[in-house]
Parts: sequence; C-alpha cells; structure tokens
Amino acid sequence: MVTINQQRLLDDLSTLRTFGQAGTGVIRPSLSDIDMEARFWLRDRMADAGLNAVVDGVANVVGQSPNNGPALLIGSHSDTQPTGGWLDGALGVIYGLEVARALLEDPDTAHLAVDAVAWCDEEATYTSCLGSKAFCGVLTNDDYVATNAAGESVTNALRRLGLDGRSHERVDPDRHIGYLEAHIEQGPHLEANAQRIGVVTSIVGIGGMTIGFTGEQNHAGTTPMALRKDAGVALFEFATRARERIARVASESSVWTFGSAQLLPGAESIIPGRAELLLQFRDPSAAVLDAIDTEMRALADEMTSEGPVTVAVDETRERIAPTVMDGALQEHIAGAATTHAPGVWTHMPSAAGHDPMVIAHHLPCAMLFIPSIGGVSHDFAEDTSPEDIALGCQVLADAAVSILTSAAQ
Amino acid sequence: MVTINQQRLLDDLSTLRTFGQAGTGVIRPSLSDIDMEARFWLRDRMADAGLNAVVDGVANVVGQSPNNGPALLIGSHSDTQPTGGWLDGALGVIYGLEVARALLEDPDTAHLAVDAVAWCDEEATYTSCLGSKAFCGVLTNDDYVATNAAGESVTNALRRLGLDGRSHERVDPDRHIGYLEAHIEQGPHLEANAQRIGVVTSIVGIGGMTIGFTGEQNHAGTTPMALRKDAGVALFEFATRARERIARVASESSVWTFGSAQLLPGAESIIPGRAELLLQFRDPSAAVLDAIDTEMRALADEMTSEGPVTVAVDETRERIAPTVMDGALQEHIAGAATTHAPGVWTHMPSAAGHDPMVIAHHLPCAMLFIPSIGGVSHDFAEDTSPEDIALGCQVLADAAVSILTSAAQ
Repeated sequence: MVTINQQRLLDDLSTLRTFGQAGTGVIRPSLSDIDMEARFWLRDRMADAGLNAVVDGVANVVGQSPNNGPALLIGSHSDTQPTGGWLDGALGVIYGLEVARALLEDPDTAHLAVDAVAWCDEEATYTSCLGSKAFCGVLTNDDYVATNAAGESVTNALRRLGLDGRSHERVDPDRHIGYLEAHIEQGPHLEANAQRIGVVTSIVGIGGMTIGFTGEQNHAGTTPMALRKDAGVALFEFATRARERIARVASESSVWTFGSAQLLPGAESIIPGRAELLLQFRDPSAAVLDAIDTEMRALADEMTSEGPVTVAVDETRERIAPTVMDGALQEHIAGAATTHAPGVWTHMPSAAGHDPMVIAHHLPCAMLFIPSIGGVSHDFAEDTSPEDIALGCQVLADAAVSILTSAAQ
Repeated sequence: MVTINQQRLLDDLSTLRTFGQAGTGVIRPSLSDIDMEARFWLRDRMADAGLNAVVDGVANVVGQSPNNGPALLIGSHSDTQPTGGWLDGALGVIYGLEVARALLEDPDTAHLAVDAVAWCDEEATYTSCLGSKAFCGVLTNDDYVATNAAGESVTNALRRLGLDGRSHERVDPDRHIGYLEAHIEQGPHLEANAQRIGVVTSIVGIGGMTIGFTGEQNHAGTTPMALRKDAGVALFEFATRARERIARVASESSVWTFGSAQLLPGAESIIPGRAELLLQFRDPSAAVLDAIDTEMRALADEMTSEGPVTVAVDETRERIAPTVMDGALQEHIAGAATTHAPGVWTHMPSAAGHDPMVIAHHLPCAMLFIPSIGGVSHDFAEDTSPEDIALGCQVLADAAVSILTSAAQ
C-alpha cells in the first residue's frame, strides 16, 4: 500500500491543461510547438520526481526509475485531438508520473521501479501511435512519411523540432515486465452503471470497408422512375438493410457506424450514377468482426443480383485485431479496485483504441478506466470528477506495488 | 405547305457541331470563346438567309425577318452543358434558321415573318435562361452577378467579350404573336412508344428542398448503439421511407431524385451529428408538387417525434411552376404532325426545363419534340436519326405557316 498525493496529482493535471488550453478544452496536437513545450515541462516534472528523464528522438518523454528492474512502464500520450478534452491521454501521463514519485517517496516502496512515459501522436495527427511504435521498434517508413493535415511529414516535423527521429528509447526485455495505462472511459458505461473503475479486458478490434454502388447517371427530369439505375437509392437501401443484417451476427459489445456517404456527381438535377458508403465496425471478438464482414459482402451480392445497381465492397480497411489485456495484470488491478472501490468496479472492453494495441505485442499490458461525465470525449466538454480522478490513481498505484512486489518474489 | 431543305438543315447542324466538338459530343458552354464563334457563325447564316441578324448585348443571336408582323419567333439556345451533346439546343436553333429561310424562299410563304433566335445560357453555366430573360425584360441584378464555376460573373464575362449586357433585343408585342421551340425529347418516351413527334402540353414544374438531420456527434467506438443519435442513420431511413410516401401522392408523370446526401463531419470514427439530403421533384401539376412537398414535411415531423434525431426541411428551393403550352399553337403543330407523321405523334409533357418557362409569361409558346436515341441527353452519346431530324423541321415549318396564315386572316 502506498498513498498518492491527490492535490499534487490534480495540480499537475491542471498545469498540463494550460498547454494549449482553449476554454474548457485543449488544442495540443502532436509535434506542435505547444505540444513540445508540454513535453519539456513533463520531462522536468519527471526529473523533479527523481527519474532519469528525456525527450527522445521521436518526442516520447520517458522517465526511467533510478532503481533496477523488474520495472513497470506506466503512462499514456500527452498529445490531443485537433479540438480535444483535457483528460484524454493527459490523465494517464500524470498518473504514471504520480505513481512513480509516490512509490519513490514511500520507504516501503522506494526500491520498486516504475518508468513513466508520455507517448507521441497516439491521436494520429501524423500517424497513429507514433511514439509507442518507435518504443517497440516497429515504426516503418510509412510512418515517417505520414503527413499531418497541413502536409508536413513526420520526418520534417521532427527535424523542425530538432529531433532526429532515429535515436529513441526502446523497450528493454531485461527490465520491463509490463505496461499499465489509465484512461477516461470515453463512453457512458461506467457512469450509467454507477461504477467508478473499469478493468479493461481487451481493446476492441476494428474492421471496415467502403461499399461502392454503380448505377447509371442520368437526367433527373427526363428519366422515368421505372427506368432509373439510381446509385443513391441503392445506397440508402443498403444502409437500411445493413442495420438488421449486422444485428443478426453482432455481440452485445458490437458497434457499427456509417461515417460517410457520397452521391456522385452530387447535383440537384442529376440521378446519381455512383455512390460510396463508409462502414466501420468494432467488437472485442475477431470472429464477430469476420461475421459482420461476411454479412456485408453477402448483402452486396444479394443487392447486385436483385439489380438494377451493382453493389460491391470496393476496399477493405486495414483490420485492427482485438487486443487482449494480460490476465495476471488485470487481476492485480482488480485486487486494488476491490480494496479502494468495493462493489463499484467492473471488467469491461475498451471500445476506443489506445497505445496498448501496439505495446501488447511486446509487453504484457493492462488498462484501467475511470468514468467520463456524460460519456463525452474528443470534445471540449470532456470531464471527470476530482474524486474519480484521485481514486483511479490510487488504484493504479496499489496495483503497481502489487505487480512489482509479486514479480520480485 | 412549304418544303424545308433537308440537306442544308443537316449540313448546318453538322457545321454547328464543329464549334467545340469533342468526339461525338460538344463542349460549348455559354460565353466561352467557342460559344461566341458559333454565335457569329449563326448570325452570318441568318444574314445569308435574308434576316436582319445581330449578336446582341447579352450574346443572343436574333435574326429578324424583313417582313412586317405578325411574326413568329422560332429558335432555342446554342450553348451546351459542360460536356454536352450535339443536338440539345442546337437542333431548335437550326430549325428556326431553316424554317425562316424556307418560308422566305417559297413564293407562297415569302410574305410571312419568322424571326430566328439562338438564346444565351439556357444551360445555366452562369444563370439559367440568361438570354430569354433579357429578351423578356426580366433579367435581374442577381443574374448579372451570377458566376460560372471559375467564379466569373455574367457582367465580367460579357465585358470580356466586348458586350455591354444592357442593349439587347426585346420582345415586341406589336410584332411577335408567339414563340416555337423544337428540341430532342431528352427522355425515352417517344422512342419506347414508336412515336416520332411529341407536341408538348406543358413543361413540368420543379419543387425541391434540403432536409436537415440533427443528431449528436460522438465517438464511433465508445458510444453504444442504443444511446446514439446518428444523423446519418436518420437520413437513410428518411430517404427509404420517402419513396413510399411520395408514391402515394405522385402522378404518372412525377419524378423525384435525391441528388446529394452528406454526413457530417464525414469521418470513419465519428458518428454523424448532422446530415443533409437534397430532394428534387417534378410534375406537370402544381397540385401534385404541393402534395409531395406536404408529404415530405409530414414525414420530417413524424421522424422528429419518433426521435432520436430532429428532421427538418432546412430550405425550400425556389419553386418553378409548371408552364402550360398555348392550346391554339399546339393545335397547329398537331395538325402539321397529322399530315407528316400520321399515327406516330403524341401529346406529352416536357420533363426537362426550357426557355419557354420564361417566355410563356410574355408570349404564347409551344414546343415540338423529336426522339432521343436511348433517351440519352446531356452526354456525348446524345443522338437522333437524320430522318427524325428532317421530319421534325418539316412539321415545324408547316405549323409556322399555318399559325402565321391564320393570324393574318
């Protein structure tokens, strides 16, 4: 048992919020000037805590404990969405800092090694999970040439900031025994069920496709209804029928979204000859993702044979496999939650993506969720009560002590 | 009875086609350099025919008969769609020229007055029916400031061409007794029913609206299906239900088209908080247009009360009222059709818009249709057989003689 410093935790979160603050929200996209200012501030806080802290060649902030391993890596990302909230990423970063320093301050735990981290570009301003990919040694050339909305590549952004992009911290199999990340839920489940802590079982996998509809472009005045091959009408019908078809094979945790639809050429007086629909679906089970994919292809084939419009899966989006969290690490978090939040914690999947999707291939990972007020995230209105923020950090600190203590035995 | 010169008619159509020719199609948008070249060529052909011909201040080509009135105005527009066919507009222009000169050449009809015309910008490269609006004195400041896709205004386009935009030909109530326009059908009805001539009863009216869907933008991963207020899903449902609802009140001649649909913000991982749908509907009856409009508003209200997304008619597009063709003029065309195309002509509405929508408020109007092969128009593939082209012009010439002769009695 160790006791975190709640006031220091909340103060550091408030200070980090000032970097890029915009009303109640934060605008701190990765590799912007304000993002770098925040990273140097984080490095200094880590150093103040007694960690050996650096901003590395890909702008990860890594604060290594002066203690020998086994070490736990704890953190999250400090970059935000283009118009982001103040807790997404930031919460888990300051938790890592607070857990590391709370353990070092307590004579009973001062010998345990927690390395704190703030990853770069989880939010994909340039390329998703840039920092954790680099740390795990899986950054590719595609990542280096990925560009932000202004067309600047990762390589050029790092160069602009005086970073070389190549010399950076790496996972150390002889030292690191696992990675923990805390995060706001970004959904309504905890709040709706009056739970205060979520122990994440897995991060859902993501599948997706673009569906193309090919009919016949024609004059919207002179073409009788019966002779039309209207790609837009087919799109509306597909989307409507898809809801019932996906529901047949979906699990309780499945979600699916048509995020974009386009009728071409998109003019008032022209029957659309072509239409395109973007579908994304998520589930903790790879089998369910496969079933949804199969169902959509079957529906496309059916509609094509019914006519008059040809429906086809144009492009399959890169599948992100579900990421299962480490069972043993989950048990340590569950134990700490039972101590500090008896009866108000639960196991749950993460419906959003996080750096452990990368890291879990290299280190055992676990995640802890705290409630999001109203389930709101990626929005200036994102918030969580100070009591929940403090509770989550205390649970994480105790879980870390429990993990490191049992690892040393 | 007068006999048109079929070879001259086809030759002039072929020559006009060379201005802006692109394969089998034509690219001759209004007020382009090639459009102006074609207009000066038309002026010269009209002058050759003995007409007093000018390109006026808004680029209309008007060839006035040397005879006193009563005069019939006959023509169409010589501009094309961005990628147009060779007959849309051009056919009616050359018919006007051929009818005027055939009558002047025949001693029996040489005293009759036919004024030939080629209107500017019926196709709305800048503003629809620019030329006929100017001729009827109803051009507004909105028309002068209207821009083409490149952002050039009508005023600037005319100035670029050395035209002042103000001094132009006008309808003369003491001279003009009516306006006739021939056109390809741009639809499949004549061909499908083995008819060769259509006597137009009315030009359909056009109604339209944009329908807005307001839900709640949210994270496509973390928001459970049951809690979503997905504006896109509501749009798909509205469009699907609208088909059945419109069919309840539509006539045999009704057509309706969703030409554009947008989900906002339109991203893979974001539940659309907003969506917009564009609906256009056409019918020869104003009452049917009203009924479709009412039905759509009722559906929007129903869906809003069903929830969870608010559906509202955001914007009512400017209603174009149905334009009824003059009954007496129709009878003269029908009489000529009975002579030259017995059993293979029909009365029919025009499903596309034409300059008579403007002119009919100032002069009695009538239109004659000839078949479009495959119903295709506004496309390089647009075509009609030479026999049908010749027949239509002969019917129009006889109708003109009949109208002018009876007017003089």
